[in-house]
Amino acid sequence: MFTNRRDVQIQWGDCDPANIVYYPRYFAMFDDSTSALFAAAGCSKRDLVHVYGLVGIPMVDTRAKFYIPSTYGDVITIESRIEKINRSSFEVIHKVTKDDALAIEAFETRVLVGRDPADPSKLKSAAVPAEIVEKFMRG
Amino acid sequence: MFTNRRDVQIQWGDCDPANIVYYPRYFAMFDDSTSALFAAAGCSKRDLVHVYGLVGIPMVDTRAKFYIPSTYGDVITIESRIEKINRSSFEVIHKVTKDDALAIEAFETRVLVGRDPADPSKLKSAAVPAEIVEKFMRG
Amino acid sequence: MFTNRRDVQIQWGDCDPANIVYYPRYFAMFDDSTSALFAAAGCSKRDLVHVYGLVGIPMVDTRAKFYIPSTYGDVITIESRIEKINRSSFEVIHKVTKDDALAIEAFETRVLVGRDPADPSKLKSAAVPAEIVEKFMRG
Amino acid sequence: MFTNRRDVQIQWGDCDPANIVYYPRYFAMFDDSTSALFAAAGCSKRDLVHVYGLVGIPMVDTRAKFYIPSTYGDVITIESRIEKINRSSFEVIHKVTKDDALAIEAFETRVLVGRDPADPSKLKSAAVPAEIVEKFMRG
Repeated sequence: MFTNRRDVQIQWGDCDPANIVYYPRYFAMFDDSTSALFAAAGCSKRDLVHVYGLVGIPMVDTRAKFYIPSTYGDVITIESRIEKINRSSFEVIHKVTKDDALAIEAFETRVLVGRDPADPSKLKSAAVPAEIVEKFMRG
Repeated sequence: MFTNRRDVQIQWGDCDPANIVYYPRYFAMFDDSTSALFAAAGCSKRDLVHVYGLVGIPMVDTRAKFYIPSTYGDVITIESRIEKINRSSFEVIHKVTKDDALAIEAFETRVLVGRDPADPSKLKSAAVPAEIVEKFMRG
Repeated sequence: MFTNRRDVQIQWGDCDPANIVYYPRYFAMFDDSTSALFAAAGCSKRDLVHVYGLVGIPMVDTRAKFYIPSTYGDVITIESRIEKINRSSFEVIHKVTKDDALAIEAFETRVLVGRDPADPSKLKSAAVPAEIVEKFMRG
Repeated sequence: MFTNRRDVQIQWGDCDPANIVYYPRYFAMFDDSTSALFAAAGCSKRDLVHVYGLVGIPMVDTRAKFYIPSTYGDVITIESRIEKINRSSFEVIHKVTKDDALAIEAFETRVLVGRDPADPSKLKSAAVPAEIVEKFMRG
């Protein structure tokens, strides 16, 4: 299905005293990668909010397995692929490689949410817009 | 097994434009919670480095399932429990509750690493110190 | 004027490969400290939004001078003091000490903002609520 | 003097509930920009550590004035310029523009540090390497 790839250079501030990436930083990179995936499909995060009236695509379930550490100056490649689309949720797989070796595998399930009409202080799941589904399906 | 519990108040800077915690921030909270678990067992992160000569306890595999979102001002309770200890790795479960409701479940597997004597630029797994094992086992 | 003091323990993830706090993290600690200052005055960030209808208190001008580095495990004390209150802005000074020695001095000027009634996508400065002024003045 | 310019797209996770960049994130961008300035001069952060034996270039004094807020999706341009070079410290000015309007002005003074030979647990200022001085002077 729909795939996007981008290179990320590890920065000094991404790393911890062990000289390797502080792992929560990878999740921020994955979050940016999912945004990039939507943007590549013609729907930026800003479109999600301003065109489709959504509030965001919060994380429901995510897992990452770390095989090879990286440090500042390293360039990693994050390949993000839509794995499955449900009515109001979707799954993404992120495959991180460094020098062609598999460094990290991650998956995530997110849900699209808008404001609950009955109580705008609450969030409510929303259907994935048809145009996005179509774009993601064609790949 | 060994358990530690701490309260965390969600800060403004932990939250994103959807007004809920930006999920990578939770992993930073879990990282702090695992440090607190070791400290509660009498071995701070500083001890790990300075007493036991280790470099860190990098993440090997982590997963989190998010059930209830939180926003700034909320106080969550993170209960962290040692689930399993292997020769050079260990598993932790973090259970996050808010107002007694289960908000997030996370697990993690980490490995203890030191410098590789053969090549100090590389990391090498190291055995969990016996005192720590004993303390974690007694709970 | 109004002052609040809190202790912060430096965490592993606050530090960089030089083994000292990655300085942007200090600004996050100062942001939390200014929130704590408001909370101590009886007006949490949540109150600012939900009671006073504001959007936030964005930074206008901030400076920090760093004298003594800190590392994970260190406990620093952040003393935050309201220095000046204007119609819609205020100044805060943060004095960080470690073992009674001055480690960092920072100041900040922030402005209170709400949504611009003429264009809700824009921000507009808002007067500091009278109760807050009074509380801050009495100290 | 020596100048480097780079574009940065604001990400979702850079922003707070007010929908604008959480200001500590700007300091992380400036830190990356100073690294990029050194890399453009032929000396990456990795070179600083591995070629010149330094530990880092910690911040001594930094200030930022914020004129125009930005939100996710915005692209800002950060122009970083070496302003002054001293024996073991240097000053950088970062000028941030958005759509050609001045959005932020920041300056910073950093010091080059290595391990203190008398006590490797302590940091000690180190001279700016002559090749770097020369490169920065020629601009």
